[in-house]
Amino acid sequence: MKRKEITKRIVCIGGGTGTFVVLRGLKYYPYHISAIVAMSDSGGSNKRIRDEFGLLPTSDIRQCLVALSDENGGAGLLRKLFMYRFEKGQGISGMTFGNLYMAALADILGSQKEAIRQTGKVLRIRGSVIPVSYTDTNLYAEYEDGHVLTEEHMIDEPHHDGKLHIRRISLKPNAEANPEAIDAITQADLIVLGPGDLYTSLIPNLLVEKIADAIRKSNAQKVYIVNLMTKWGQTYNFSAKDHVRVVGDYIGRTIDTVLVNNGVIPKSVQDIYARHHEYPVSDDFRDHETYTVVRANIVNRMLSTKAKSDTLVRSLIRHDSDRLAYELVRMIDPDVEVRRDL
Amino acid sequence: MKRKEITKRIVCIGGGTGTFVVLRGLKYYPYHISAIVAMSDSGGSNKRIRDEFGLLPTSDIRQCLVALSDENGGAGLLRKLFMYRFEKGQGISGMTFGNLYMAALADILGSQKEAIRQTGKVLRIRGSVIPVSYTDTNLYAEYEDGHVLTEEHMIDEPHHDGKLHIRRISLKPNAEANPEAIDAITQADLIVLGPGDLYTSLIPNLLVEKIADAIRKSNAQKVYIVNLMTKWGQTYNFSAKDHVRVVGDYIGRTIDTVLVNNGVIPKSVQDIYARHHEYPVSDDFRDHETYTVVRANIVNRMLSTKAKSDTLVRSLIRHDSDRLAYELVRMIDPDVEVRRDL
Repeated sequence: MKRKEITKRIVCIGGGTGTFVVLRGLKYYPYHISAIVAMSDSGGSNKRIRDEFGLLPTSDIRQCLVALSDENGGAGLLRKLFMYRFEKGQGISGMTFGNLYMAALADILGSQKEAIRQTGKVLRIRGSVIPVSYTDTNLYAEYEDGHVLTEEHMIDEPHHDGKLHIRRISLKPNAEANPEAIDAITQADLIVLGPGDLYTSLIPNLLVEKIADAIRKSNAQKVYIVNLMTKWGQTYNFSAKDHVRVVGDYIGRTIDTVLVNNGVIPKSVQDIYARHHEYPVSDDFRDHETYTVVRANIVNRMLSTKAKSDTLVRSLIRHDSDRLAYELVRMIDPDVEVRRDL
Repeated sequence: MKRKEITKRIVCIGGGTGTFVVLRGLKYYPYHISAIVAMSDSGGSNKRIRDEFGLLPTSDIRQCLVALSDENGGAGLLRKLFMYRFEKGQGISGMTFGNLYMAALADILGSQKEAIRQTGKVLRIRGSVIPVSYTDTNLYAEYEDGHVLTEEHMIDEPHHDGKLHIRRISLKPNAEANPEAIDAITQADLIVLGPGDLYTSLIPNLLVEKIADAIRKSNAQKVYIVNLMTKWGQTYNFSAKDHVRVVGDYIGRTIDTVLVNNGVIPKSVQDIYARHHEYPVSDDFRDHETYTVVRANIVNRMLSTKAKSDTLVRSLIRHDSDRLAYELVRMIDPDVEVRRDL
């Protein structure tokens, strides 16, 4: 009798570009991959999806679906379409094709949940993409000077002094967890938190009822990937330990493992970020922390040099999908073979 | 040695709903089917595709792609999406998903021609859909009282007395034929003209340079399907022979065969049309015409009774896809087996 193969399960929690990068590397390994995605985004294309179509935001969902999609097979062209943003057409320019696709499908199928599932099918994704909640909710951030901002896109690009830190962030109304998200966390062997915008991508997941609880109770190894750079308006001056502390606060316990970059971020790139008051996150971990610290060169060597405009700066430096994935899978499978050239 | 099977080739010329109906029935037969589609449409979603995206109109192309698409296999959901019209979203409401899909694809691939080909692939179409021309052109109609209207949607819904007939219709600028359209006509065993709006769906194809010439020279059997109803503003009071005469004028020779409905159009349906000055086309063919007259019950029995608004009236009665297809294929293959229940 053939021995039943046990597939390990990895859950990535986040939603933004950071999660996209992790998923893109992980999909090449023979594990079951799920992405749990924040649903409180309210900017740009998402704002229109919420306000005009009465749907939950889909940009992060779409990005994760694209990250997990088959890049070689027949889904190639649809993949490109999903990343396409219209540049022409009154009222259409600025919308992403993928969001319109999912809005049309939600209307046809009568369910946004079913639309996400069907989109995953046509994109031939490996794994699953799970909205953390189906509750229509918004982020509220209270800053250390007492003032409050609401809506994700306002918090993301605040007009106040960006040195101000967030004292407390919450969801209104309370959001109910998607049972599929709870199941994925409960069954996971590895829970990956981040990288990504701390208060607008990662923590919004932890604010959904029962999610932090499920993470705490899970037997999975819990790893947090420290961001490469601080973010003006959110994590100005934050060290690596500051990041870990805040994540721990919102989960209600410390994590097991921290993955931090020790690769070089070129001076030329640092200079561009510095103009926007953003700096490499300093590694201030000591020898004996209450969690394991894994240091690795996980920065992408293919740096974009096309920083023509300010808006491009944010995508100037990234984690490397393949290096990140390899470091993660080694945590649950030390003998794993590298699936991609590093 | 196995005998090589010769596949017969059927070319349908038109573009609107009439062509959709013909293609939907023909695709179940083992022939090579092509649709040659007019590219001078300028209404609604097409107007925006032309004006804002700088592309040629795609609504008729899209309809024909959907008509030829696989209805059972994996393309089912995409098929529904292609027929979907957005009802929400500022600037998006009223647009068809299929047109936006093809606009995005044309931008990604850098070619509208390639976008049509790739869309055909994902919809798994049987046969091919061929734009009659890639020239950006417009219709000009001169009426019997001397006044001139331009743009297809103006001619389709004229504000003058709808009894007026069109003296002459033309394209400005002259449109160059798509070589694929000429090839399809040259190689055809059967050329199907219509049904559909005479001056805005069928004849615009015949106005493209070399198309009428190719039809005249072709050895194919040429069949014209007479419309069920007259059209206010275009063919008021036209008999079947009037239709045939006008088509013959624009081709420059008479056609070989005329297919005309002898099934009953219910009084209740006629009454609704009559309110819009539209009437069943009278069969005034005599015993010995210069062409063969085929009479058959080719009207759809599944009449819509949901004529809630005036705009729905136009789709109240249709030819029957399956009956139409059967009558057509019998013309080139008298022993053909019926592929669908009639």
